[in-house]
Amino acid sequence: MTRLLPFRFDQGEPTLWLLDQRKLPFEEVWVPCRTAAEAAAGIRDMVVRGAPAIGVTAAYGMVLAHLSGEDPAEADRVLRHSRPTAVNLFYALDRMKPHWGDLEATLREARAVWEEVEQTEQAISRHGAAVLKGQVLTHCNTGPLATGGYGTALGAIVEAYRQGRVTHVWVDETRPYLQGARLTAYELHKAGVPATLVTDNMAAYLMGKGEVDAVILGTDRMATNGDFANKIGTYGLAVLCHYHGIPFYPALPLSSVDPRLGSGEDIPIEERSALEVTTVRGVAIAPEGFPAAHPAFDVTPHHLVTGIVTEHGVLYPPFDESLPRALARSAGRQASVADS
Amino acid sequence: MTRLLPFRFDQGEPTLWLLDQRKLPFEEVWVPCRTAAEAAAGIRDMVVRGAPAIGVTAAYGMVLAHLSGEDPAEADRVLRHSRPTAVNLFYALDRMKPHWGDLEATLREARAVWEEVEQTEQAISRHGAAVLKGQVLTHCNTGPLATGGYGTALGAIVEAYRQGRVTHVWVDETRPYLQGARLTAYELHKAGVPATLVTDNMAAYLMGKGEVDAVILGTDRMATNGDFANKIGTYGLAVLCHYHGIPFYPALPLSSVDPRLGSGEDIPIEERSALEVTTVRGVAIAPEGFPAAHPAFDVTPHHLVTGIVTEHGVLYPPFDESLPRALARSAGRQASVADS
Repeated sequence: MTRLLPFRFDQGEPTLWLLDQRKLPFEEVWVPCRTAAEAAAGIRDMVVRGAPAIGVTAAYGMVLAHLSGEDPAEADRVLRHSRPTAVNLFYALDRMKPHWGDLEATLREARAVWEEVEQTEQAISRHGAAVLKGQVLTHCNTGPLATGGYGTALGAIVEAYRQGRVTHVWVDETRPYLQGARLTAYELHKAGVPATLVTDNMAAYLMGKGEVDAVILGTDRMATNGDFANKIGTYGLAVLCHYHGIPFYPALPLSSVDPRLGSGEDIPIEERSALEVTTVRGVAIAPEGFPAAHPAFDVTPHHLVTGIVTEHGVLYPPFDESLPRALARSAGRQASVADS
Repeated sequence: MTRLLPFRFDQGEPTLWLLDQRKLPFEEVWVPCRTAAEAAAGIRDMVVRGAPAIGVTAAYGMVLAHLSGEDPAEADRVLRHSRPTAVNLFYALDRMKPHWGDLEATLREARAVWEEVEQTEQAISRHGAAVLKGQVLTHCNTGPLATGGYGTALGAIVEAYRQGRVTHVWVDETRPYLQGARLTAYELHKAGVPATLVTDNMAAYLMGKGEVDAVILGTDRMATNGDFANKIGTYGLAVLCHYHGIPFYPALPLSSVDPRLGSGEDIPIEERSALEVTTVRGVAIAPEGFPAAHPAFDVTPHHLVTGIVTEHGVLYPPFDESLPRALARSAGRQASVADS
């Protein structure tokens, strides 16, 4: 079993190869990037996606800038404008800046950005695996393709399968954008984990039949009380777990907790194009021009959460105590790394 | 506003025209049937679908047999074998049998079969409309296309809109077969009712925001205690309504109650092709060969049901008393009609 990654860096050529996620799972096409500008185009055009994976790609973009003789300030500017809202992108580029002009240091720092993602997700996977068993259900895409690491919720699932704790995975197709059917199914297939695709509306049926032992999924943004935003459909799964007495776990790096947010009430919900609902891969599924709603995310209140899986362990209620404590520990560890 | 019907009978030509539901909502194609064999082919090939609509089509198929000079016994046999599991089909053909060879009686009986569907659904629509208000959400397809009448749950919604009680409808797309996106959206558009398409996993989000005042949907088969089987996703909606305190109504003609079934536990769930999950209108949405589950129905226990909308009024708990009482009333009425 080979480890699935969204990119690979070939120092000999030198080239950063991006796995074209727009074409997955139907074609596996690797796109070569030999300059920072090409890496920026890969981010902008969503050849690579997912906040951590974008950060690592940008870091290696600065390596390419050095090797191809691009002006580092110009390379930094182009990369920074590729996806303007990705926090990980700015974080990675800020880390590269002190090393401009020094190839060895640039390479080392890009590798360090990547390793940090890997270590965080290995810890999340280890802690998450310990609370999973039997059959689990997941929603959307939280695997290595989005991160360059091991994944968050999906990392925990794969680790639990390796430990013999999890036996089978139900993959929500995750309408409208089908991240589950297209990407999570692909990742689980590559990882050799037994899995079955279901439409989102089959979860309740499976739960009622006792075929779901836990639900674990990702988190886009969490408030300090444990309320969290994630892909549309997450809140419904939380309610169904509550009704059926099934454990429900969001997984995330603590960097996804927004310390300025006391509750989830104020998290704005992005309304995306109706066309993503009324068409599937370019094919119409509804009368032309029929109105459709497309809230891309929903907010799940903390009282429906069994535990929060982080790189500092699984946090339990009351979350307004356990989360700030974990954040303080995390900040302390980062400070001591910065001091060293 | 014209009334939407799945067929029209032109006595002049004479031709039974079927609206090709396989092509809706993308094309409106009317298929002419001039013989019982052609009507049977329309049923078999699913040009027309929905149990009541199939019954009416078969009745007019016997009219065509007379007009085209087909042998009535042979016409009856061909129609009876078009969709072997449709109870309404056998019921309609049994009613036509005494009138073989008499054109006027055959035409009268076909019209009576159709009128019975219309009257039952007008009553369901009227009773259902009285308990609906504001914004309602529905699942799958329960409108005139499936029945030749007014529809069951959708009939109630349209009637409530006409009365000014319902202002807006949320249409679940109803994966995997997309009956909501394809047919219900089309029917509501034709009826001029303001409606918005949503993916099935958006219902919880809308409920949490207070934008769903009731859920009303169809019923494939109901037990005498009120447990009922319906399109996959129905059970999950019932749980979500329960959690949010939203009224939840199945609508059905009493002929869909199976008097031999004391509870829903024994209703077998049809497992359909995985291909219907892994493809959408012929386009792949998952890695080739990836396993998929496809339970076509689920069973909702009666304790999640607010009221059952029937042609004899809305029934309330305890259903194991109100349902048998309504069935007895219904049988009494049928008996008195038969006597008259």
